[in-house]
Amino acid sequence: MTPEISTRGRQMPASPIRKLTPLADAAKKRGVRVLHLNIGQPDLETPQAMRDQLTKVPAVVAYSPSQGTAECQGALRRYYQRALGVCLGNDEVLATTGGSEAIQFALMASANPGDQVLVVEPYYTNYAAFAAMAGVTLSPITAKAEDGFHLPPREDWERAKTARTRALILCNPNNPTGTVYTREEVMAAAQFCRDHGLFLIADEVYREFAYDGRQPVSALSLAGYEDLTVMVDSLSKRYSACGMRLGCLVTRNRDFYGACLRMAQGRLSPPGLAQLMSLGADELGPDYSAGVVAEYQKRRDLLYRGMGEIPGVFLRKPEGAFYFVARLPVKDSEDFAAWLLSDFEHQGATVMVAPAPGFYATPGLGQDEVRIAYVLKAEDLELAVRVFRHGLEAYRQARGLAPVGVEAVAAPA
Amino acid sequence: MTPEISTRGRQMPASPIRKLTPLADAAKKRGVRVLHLNIGQPDLETPQAMRDQLTKVPAVVAYSPSQGTAECQGALRRYYQRALGVCLGNDEVLATTGGSEAIQFALMASANPGDQVLVVEPYYTNYAAFAAMAGVTLSPITAKAEDGFHLPPREDWERAKTARTRALILCNPNNPTGTVYTREEVMAAAQFCRDHGLFLIADEVYREFAYDGRQPVSALSLAGYEDLTVMVDSLSKRYSACGMRLGCLVTRNRDFYGACLRMAQGRLSPPGLAQLMSLGADELGPDYSAGVVAEYQKRRDLLYRGMGEIPGVFLRKPEGAFYFVARLPVKDSEDFAAWLLSDFEHQGATVMVAPAPGFYATPGLGQDEVRIAYVLKAEDLELAVRVFRHGLEAYRQARGLAPVGVEAVAAPA
Repeated sequence: MTPEISTRGRQMPASPIRKLTPLADAAKKRGVRVLHLNIGQPDLETPQAMRDQLTKVPAVVAYSPSQGTAECQGALRRYYQRALGVCLGNDEVLATTGGSEAIQFALMASANPGDQVLVVEPYYTNYAAFAAMAGVTLSPITAKAEDGFHLPPREDWERAKTARTRALILCNPNNPTGTVYTREEVMAAAQFCRDHGLFLIADEVYREFAYDGRQPVSALSLAGYEDLTVMVDSLSKRYSACGMRLGCLVTRNRDFYGACLRMAQGRLSPPGLAQLMSLGADELGPDYSAGVVAEYQKRRDLLYRGMGEIPGVFLRKPEGAFYFVARLPVKDSEDFAAWLLSDFEHQGATVMVAPAPGFYATPGLGQDEVRIAYVLKAEDLELAVRVFRHGLEAYRQARGLAPVGVEAVAAPA
Repeated sequence: MTPEISTRGRQMPASPIRKLTPLADAAKKRGVRVLHLNIGQPDLETPQAMRDQLTKVPAVVAYSPSQGTAECQGALRRYYQRALGVCLGNDEVLATTGGSEAIQFALMASANPGDQVLVVEPYYTNYAAFAAMAGVTLSPITAKAEDGFHLPPREDWERAKTARTRALILCNPNNPTGTVYTREEVMAAAQFCRDHGLFLIADEVYREFAYDGRQPVSALSLAGYEDLTVMVDSLSKRYSACGMRLGCLVTRNRDFYGACLRMAQGRLSPPGLAQLMSLGADELGPDYSAGVVAEYQKRRDLLYRGMGEIPGVFLRKPEGAFYFVARLPVKDSEDFAAWLLSDFEHQGATVMVAPAPGFYATPGLGQDEVRIAYVLKAEDLELAVRVFRHGLEAYRQARGLAPVGVEAVAAPA
């Protein structure tokens, strides 16, 4: 008798960001250049000062403390002091294997199997994977494109909450929408958690990426909510070092920290070489971040203008992160994204985008939307826009859809 | 209203290997040298050929494929070909963040929250943490010191199995007991799984460490059990590279692999620098492993002889890994281990050991046992034995226990 895998295993969602990878690989084998707008893998160099730390690798690459080395924790604490003016103790910062592990710890420490966690949809698609792994259900609150994906009214949250709701996840700046919530919105989320005894899991991995002078408000900086705030963070995007796999969980709630530390002890320690590299971040001046943000703002402008000019495409100007969700004149964005890889090329290139249904928990939503990441240099993004425009036209013809009329073009905000 | 952490979070066990760390830190602050027999952190150098790979770190430390880079998967496959004569495809080997993540994936893909997994106790203590995280219950089958901790009879397994049992974990060579199971024992475990439709989760991270000419039998090499075998492995011990955090999960069951791959996609990728380092393992000749094993066998001999001569201490000769479980003339090994760190020193040194209760699921077991790791060089182990002998005597005096009489000394096997 061959055993059957668990329901949990069977129901694990495939990543909408990665599941088309076999089609992309096949396109590359055919000699087609694939422009990756599907994944938030920045093309900027990981800072030399961080890579240089690897010359100091010790002769024995040993376990570190489960919460990270004191040096790594120190570098993280100094960052929060500089970036947010928040002073943290070493027993409030837990180094993790990427932001991914921090979110997993946060879900498991707040919710039991069968419990629910509120999340604004569209959401970072891997929340669904982490929830499935933890046996937790995501309860969606739907944000709308027309509102620039800002937070839905409180009535919607009250409606989504049940007796088994344990936490609310707020990703700010938002992946996948690029929305930066206002101070009032972050406060409203925290107050909702206070009123209902929920943890606020604040995913702030895109903190550095906010445009037009915006300053994202960290949940860590809200006075009076320390006991319910759990901030998860990552060095992946901040330092263009996604493969390093280093993140952290920050909370001033002692019980919560203790539970996460015990989970961390189970898996022994976070990656050691990444912790070593993290020490180099101390040597980066404020110019580093400013330069990176200026570069991404330029890319955002380029892609927003280019995509906005394509007939039938609707998007609002993204405020932060390096993603946006665009509405397209298609009925099945999964089919469209697959078709771009399998059946289309323009000047020897095609584009890979992430179909949006995987970013929603509510069935049926996102079928005319895709997530676009702008992590390529300007000339590649310009090419990507041209390829996308031609691809959309050719797809509509191939699927027998009428040409998009001028009347169907929604004006960007 | 301050939210409460989850029952899962509250019930997360503290690692018996690490929870005494604050006492050890305090001892070090007092100037006492702490000899670490508590943790399997080898003192051998990580091979230069692996560390040298870090000079090739790319300018952009990017995400890798979720299953690991093709190069890393290739290095792993070549290892299994060399070590076991087992030929694997890239879609059967999944690189993970240490063996820890491989075990977590295996538990979640085989069991739903509320399900049960059989395990031979004493077991690797962090199984309890991973089970708690996954919402899974460990059902213990007790192995006995008198049998050298070899597998209990099949009746015991049948008794422990319920309708909710989904898998059996077998750690071979065993942590914490140092037992190397015979081919018949591994076959019996696989057949038990076959008869009851269970997955066999074979934890083989100590494969290289077997003494007196023993060759541990890999579950991967059993013909006819491919569909139910899930092997979890780690490079940590094999290459003295615990801090790297690289392991893998191997299975020929497509559904199982698919579920684990989707979990892996959720967390994006395994640590990139560790994957890079793993490529250096290809350059190590067979001498590398032989040299390491000879060194550990020497340490095993030294510690076995030394500990066996201490009145009242009982242990069998360990067959593999670099641990053993010793029975001591104490009533509370937690108290004894804490006392060694807080109240004792001999010639400026003390020893840290792991109390055994955390290695059992059955309450009350292990209270007169500790796990000892022999990962220090010979002269430090000799000192550790002397310190331990004096510590045990002094502890018994301090707690008002009578001196151990000659009649109470159980002869080692």
